[in-house]
Amino acid sequence: MSDFNNSLFNDWSREKVLITGGAGFIGSNLARKIVDLGGEVTIVDSLIPEYGGNLFNLNGYESKLKINFSDIRDKFSMEYLLKNKSIIFNLAGQTSHLDSMTDPNTDLEINCIAQLSLLESCRKVNPSARIIFASTRQIYGKPRYLPVNEVHNINPVDINGIHKHASELYHKLYSNVYDLSTCTLRLTNTIGPRMRIKDARQTFLGIWIKNLIIGKPIEVWGGEQLRDFNDVEDVVTALIICGKNQKLISAPYNLGSSETIKLLDLANKLIEIYGEGEIKCMEYPKVRKKIDIGDYYSCYEKFKSETGWEPIKNLEYTLKKTLNYYSENFNSYL
Amino acid sequence: MSDFNNSLFNDWSREKVLITGGAGFIGSNLARKIVDLGGEVTIVDSLIPEYGGNLFNLNGYESKLKINFSDIRDKFSMEYLLKNKSIIFNLAGQTSHLDSMTDPNTDLEINCIAQLSLLESCRKVNPSARIIFASTRQIYGKPRYLPVNEVHNINPVDINGIHKHASELYHKLYSNVYDLSTCTLRLTNTIGPRMRIKDARQTFLGIWIKNLIIGKPIEVWGGEQLRDFNDVEDVVTALIICGKNQKLISAPYNLGSSETIKLLDLANKLIEIYGEGEIKCMEYPKVRKKIDIGDYYSCYEKFKSETGWEPIKNLEYTLKKTLNYYSENFNSYL
Repeated sequence: MSDFNNSLFNDWSREKVLITGGAGFIGSNLARKIVDLGGEVTIVDSLIPEYGGNLFNLNGYESKLKINFSDIRDKFSMEYLLKNKSIIFNLAGQTSHLDSMTDPNTDLEINCIAQLSLLESCRKVNPSARIIFASTRQIYGKPRYLPVNEVHNINPVDINGIHKHASELYHKLYSNVYDLSTCTLRLTNTIGPRMRIKDARQTFLGIWIKNLIIGKPIEVWGGEQLRDFNDVEDVVTALIICGKNQKLISAPYNLGSSETIKLLDLANKLIEIYGEGEIKCMEYPKVRKKIDIGDYYSCYEKFKSETGWEPIKNLEYTLKKTLNYYSENFNSYL
Repeated sequence: MSDFNNSLFNDWSREKVLITGGAGFIGSNLARKIVDLGGEVTIVDSLIPEYGGNLFNLNGYESKLKINFSDIRDKFSMEYLLKNKSIIFNLAGQTSHLDSMTDPNTDLEINCIAQLSLLESCRKVNPSARIIFASTRQIYGKPRYLPVNEVHNINPVDINGIHKHASELYHKLYSNVYDLSTCTLRLTNTIGPRMRIKDARQTFLGIWIKNLIIGKPIEVWGGEQLRDFNDVEDVVTALIICGKNQKLISAPYNLGSSETIKLLDLANKLIEIYGEGEIKCMEYPKVRKKIDIGDYYSCYEKFKSETGWEPIKNLEYTLKKTLNYYSENFNSYL
């Protein structure tokens, strides 16, 4: 591990942390880590059934943190919860690309209206808080070149990407105009324990793992597309760095991985590690093809050069760990 | 005038046109022109007092078009009005940069929620309509180079720019995914008769003209900033071209002018044409400085090369015409 480890992972005992979407995949991994580091953690989660929130994600930590059940669209409860926090990890969001197309309004409510309201509240009740926003590579759309860096044009292929980008711009604007200390990370495919596996709403790897465990074939759509994956541990490290490093202001930073893999190879690797399973290759339906982005992987050099962060978990390790986790805890994710 | 005149300005007698924001500045000028060309025009306008709608803008045309008073946020009335129209000019919007900062939610409702709802309705009840969206140079923010062309990065300095960009992306997405025939124009400063002069909500030139006529000094903030201006007649021509030319799909096109002028010089020119008046130079307050963009002018070569359009009214002509209009009709704009 690099130097950042020493300075930024200490002194969490004085931090009062709010994590929106804290019962979700990345949020819960982050919450557990910050509790381990000694920070005081409050979680906000709405537990909307189609989203990533799952109380089992906080298993063993229930008494070490506060869980507040509310929706980030609920302006008044949010205004109260935002007060007196030193760091706000703003991870709550609607993440399903397909849901954003069938129900664009809900995506708008959660990924725009609530985000704007959260920033307005911060400006009023807690202007000195550090705010970290989790954005997504989805805003780039179909890459014009690879790896995709932060100056790549913004060309989202779905409603979710449009709204996540608007929300990024809110965070940047509130930093520029009102001096809020905000910073945005653009996450690529994050995987690991505590992700949603009930369906493909959070990541297709979730439903692959579920199918593997229940003995159904893995459905691979296309299969030739290259993708990059980050272990959620590495993403949590990046969030921790961002939370503490006030020099990182507003400018979005890509996360990413030096390992890339074709989806079909990933499916085969998963089966190899699990010891059994089969693949069913699927043709893209026409409508879905229109929102497919082909090959994608991110350049994370900018974040690396400014912070020293780089992903240290390799894909094989992550897949093994994740398969183990779901083999042991399968029933808590159905 | 170029060739486009012949082909695209004919045959409006078969067009059923809907203009959102049709009682506003650009909308009313467009409505009058299309009526003159023989088109059947329906106007939707909410007449929100802070916006550009003014029934006097349709003076003399009241019996030649239909005016429907409703708000584009009103999904059900919109769904009815969108039916059976061949061309929809989607011009309604909140335009004030400062209002978008003090009341971001209303800007969000009108420039995002209502736009998304309009496209969803079109997709359901009128998927073959041609839809022209009026966007703004505000989405570029502070220019990195001049003149600003369409590949310039998107970096809005206010909430209004963020939402107008999201709305552009909606129009593009609904074209890509659902084959709606949409096209976006990015307008620069449009001026001419029928603009709002009550205050600076639509354009600072409005309040300048008002002050000139009532004998108050013109307040010039800064003064050194270069700007480009389009006569509303030229903008109407561009909209007409876009409405008819189905080959122009989705990709945003800048409008612009080959003439640029410093704000202070513009104020002096206005006084010279009017024959009297004085200037009060103002220092930018700190908050406003943060959302100022410095020099700005657009490159309109892309639109010119694909359509033959170029601005043909010079600034002197436009200012004279505009001053005459408001000298004659001043009381209808207070």
